Amino acid sequence: MATMTAAQRRDQARAEYDAFLKGCPTNQLLARISDKWVSLVVSALAERPMRYSDIGRKIAGVSPKMLTQTLRSLERDGIVSRTVTPSVPVRVDYELTPLGVNLSRLLMAVKDWAELHIEEVFEAREQYDASVS
Amino acid sequence: MATMTAAQRRDQARAEYDAFLKGCPTNQLLARISDKWVSLVVSALAERPMRYSDIGRKIAGVSPKMLTQTLRSLERDGIVSRTVTPSVPVRVDYELTPLGVNLSRLLMAVKDWAELHIEEVFEAREQYDASVS
Repeated sequence: MATMTAAQRRDQARAEYDAFLKGCPTNQLLARISDKWVSLVVSALAERPMRYSDIGRKIAGVSPKMLTQTLRSLERDGIVSRTVTPSVPVRVDYELTPLGVNLSRLLMAVKDWAELHIEEVFEAREQYDASVS
Repeated sequence: MATMTAAQRRDQARAEYDAFLKGCPTNQLLARISDKWVSLVVSALAERPMRYSDIGRKIAGVSPKMLTQTLRSLERDGIVSRTVTPSVPVRVDYELTPLGVNLSRLLMAVKDWAELHIEEVFEAREQYDASVS
């Protein structure tokens, strides 16, 4: 059997799955990865593997509860792997899986977009607010 | 003054803005665009300009309230433009601005990612659930 090209795999995935449809599992996966904390955690781990406390320091403003939930769902979805070293105290490291590295390229591009285009967004907001007041 | 290259603009934006910081306006912008409804609305409008009711039909499951809020915030941020034609009934069209077209390439890539990799995510979930039970 011939191996499918990337374009063929994409066409096939598009035929089978449609994130526009509420009942499609890709709709829930899109909701999961379209999330500020996912974006920041995946972007942080794209730099290097990190311990839990490193991630918490890198992402100011994330609560321990939200960080734990986000990491657990990323681990369950195969985007992040978790390694426990039975030292005293126990050491827990997180790193992106190959699937996570693949996703991180996209999410970092969205994060970069926000940083690159914030001033255009500021200008648009000023114009909008002036036009409605 | 020499025009900055794309790489120089990116470096400058990185020096001035950091979406990892809670107080940085890019952190709020990232939260805004890391949103399932934003992702779906922007991906829908990337196909063609649409009326309000077209968008509602394309994105099954979006409530009128959520769709109105999402479109208004995208309009305020300069990502979507809204054209009112004073016919009877009034006709309202939405389309991506050039800034919105630019963002849509990234958000469509995230949506495509969900459709392309859902089966790997399913496998990861099965393994995870088996390992913790």
